[in-house]
Amino acid sequence: MLTKKLQTFEKRDQRLRSNRGEEIRISLNEMPFPTYISDYPELIERLPTLELNRYPTLDDVQKIERLAADYLGCSVERVCLGNGLDDILFRMMLVFRGKKLGVIKPGFPCYAIYARQAGVQVCTARLSTEFELVDATLDNFMMEKPDLIVLAYPNNPTGNCFDREKIELLIKQLPNTVVIIDEAYYDFSGQSLVNLLQEYPDRLAITRTLSKGWGLAGVRIGFMAGPTWLVNSIRDLELPFHFNNFMLLVAEAAFSSTNSLLIEEVVSQREMIASLLKNHSFLKLYTSQSNFFWCKELGSEGWLRERFVNYGIKVKTYPDWPGYYRFSVGTSEENKRLLAALTNIKGV
Amino acid sequence: MLTKKLQTFEKRDQRLRSNRGEEIRISLNEMPFPTYISDYPELIERLPTLELNRYPTLDDVQKIERLAADYLGCSVERVCLGNGLDDILFRMMLVFRGKKLGVIKPGFPCYAIYARQAGVQVCTARLSTEFELVDATLDNFMMEKPDLIVLAYPNNPTGNCFDREKIELLIKQLPNTVVIIDEAYYDFSGQSLVNLLQEYPDRLAITRTLSKGWGLAGVRIGFMAGPTWLVNSIRDLELPFHFNNFMLLVAEAAFSSTNSLLIEEVVSQREMIASLLKNHSFLKLYTSQSNFFWCKELGSEGWLRERFVNYGIKVKTYPDWPGYYRFSVGTSEENKRLLAALTNIKGV
Repeated sequence: MLTKKLQTFEKRDQRLRSNRGEEIRISLNEMPFPTYISDYPELIERLPTLELNRYPTLDDVQKIERLAADYLGCSVERVCLGNGLDDILFRMMLVFRGKKLGVIKPGFPCYAIYARQAGVQVCTARLSTEFELVDATLDNFMMEKPDLIVLAYPNNPTGNCFDREKIELLIKQLPNTVVIIDEAYYDFSGQSLVNLLQEYPDRLAITRTLSKGWGLAGVRIGFMAGPTWLVNSIRDLELPFHFNNFMLLVAEAAFSSTNSLLIEEVVSQREMIASLLKNHSFLKLYTSQSNFFWCKELGSEGWLRERFVNYGIKVKTYPDWPGYYRFSVGTSEENKRLLAALTNIKGV
Repeated sequence: MLTKKLQTFEKRDQRLRSNRGEEIRISLNEMPFPTYISDYPELIERLPTLELNRYPTLDDVQKIERLAADYLGCSVERVCLGNGLDDILFRMMLVFRGKKLGVIKPGFPCYAIYARQAGVQVCTARLSTEFELVDATLDNFMMEKPDLIVLAYPNNPTGNCFDREKIELLIKQLPNTVVIIDEAYYDFSGQSLVNLLQEYPDRLAITRTLSKGWGLAGVRIGFMAGPTWLVNSIRDLELPFHFNNFMLLVAEAAFSSTNSLLIEEVVSQREMIASLLKNHSFLKLYTSQSNFFWCKELGSEGWLRERFVNYGIKVKTYPDWPGYYRFSVGTSEENKRLLAALTNIKGV
């Protein structure tokens, strides 16, 4: 049974959707419940006195860096902020300009986009057919010896957390490679490699964002804990007035708050979807430790895409992976419609 | 006499300053009157329903690009947005990586900072002793033949608008150079070179910001109108989720509004300061068409710095220009204290 607070969130969603027409937007792995300023009493109180005419000061920025450092349990010298995680990763690519980035396939396509924008060469290593990080993936990286590897944990779009020992082996086998573990979806997996930071203080970093579990995608807040040399290089590419004061205010409110209610609801909806689609005859659903699913069409070609289109459900497709789709866990209403689209199998 | 609305702004400022201790912050050329969300009825109405959990869409961004294009009277293909103007200028420098930027001296130091961050070589050309763009400056650029020149109009830190004909001559004399006219302080000068865009559609751009005259420095909103090839190159370096939804909302509210009341007040305060300090025996104040002044200490060495420190007035200093200071026009209260610091000449 839904708690009262959760019911409020569900109602917000229904109201919004009816205003908007019927499209369901589950293509971007956003938190499906509308998050408003009113969810943060601190924002309600402080926003009216926010001085829009003043540039944020260095103190304002360092305050948030300290909160992020406390949150991750490391020292502030090892933490930098970004206007979203993509801002950090793009600046990181600029630091590695002219060098080689290693990414896995299938992985988050944006890593290669940032790399191309910044003039970084990209090599790819394939996951297994079940989308696991396996020895063959590691061998591929061993051969390529990239200067930098970015690995999402859990992985995007496949939704799974790779075997931790395999990741550690990868790091060990490539002693001259900087490894970034992108834990954007950490809140939904509950699994982190943050304690490895001590073991590899000079070449391991963990990235996080408030866009996913915290429901703050629109505010653009990302952070990273990693080697001081890398943090300093990324900070060197911070512009004189890099951050906006709204983002800093929201980050402060978020770090003294929790979003566990909605995270737990998403996780529980995820498990519900997983169990209902587990034995689907025409659809293979991969296990997810995130807020989205990776699935493969097994029935007649194109049936899945057709269903998504007919039911007004916007999902993510990948040109390199025809027949595969990524869809986010939605609100219970959205998930009902998703399940209706996928389980009414007449005509497949 | 102050209008009622202006009195409200003055009161806000006094209240804030008394909360904060007595420092006067006139070092960053911000609008001195506190600007709040409540100044925009549209924000009051729309902020509560802003979905923090959703990434801004491409439509959201293009809407603001269109407003900026309308505002500047050009087509939307020729306009790009930035998280502040520095975001645009930094990406522009990335476009010119490995090439040569020409800046004037004294000019806005950040141009060279962005260039260094992006790997662009920098050459400088000196203004005259009266800080005008003169033939010698042009000759210097002719010799250096930079790929890109960025020129502030009015200039920062000197506050003056250069001779328009000299700027046109500079553009003509360097047919292979891209010229950026940074009109960040346009609102205070009322002078623009925007109509030159048609004459040099492939190599002239105008940059603007909502940080100064619009009093929105903390929100970080900049825009540029220029050649489509340059706009496209800068847009190519936009990250997949480059903008935050607060910034887009504020930009929309600002473009359907005006800040002329406060701009006129700043201009009138500027003229008042200019007339009162015009014949100062120990201080040379340069003519300003902006919201700040460039001045030179003439009395005993260090007296001006001492006064600023003693009166708790934070101004901008330049390591390369000892004895010179830049200070912003403040609220009438701030300006009174500034004038007290500068005109009580006992002991100079």
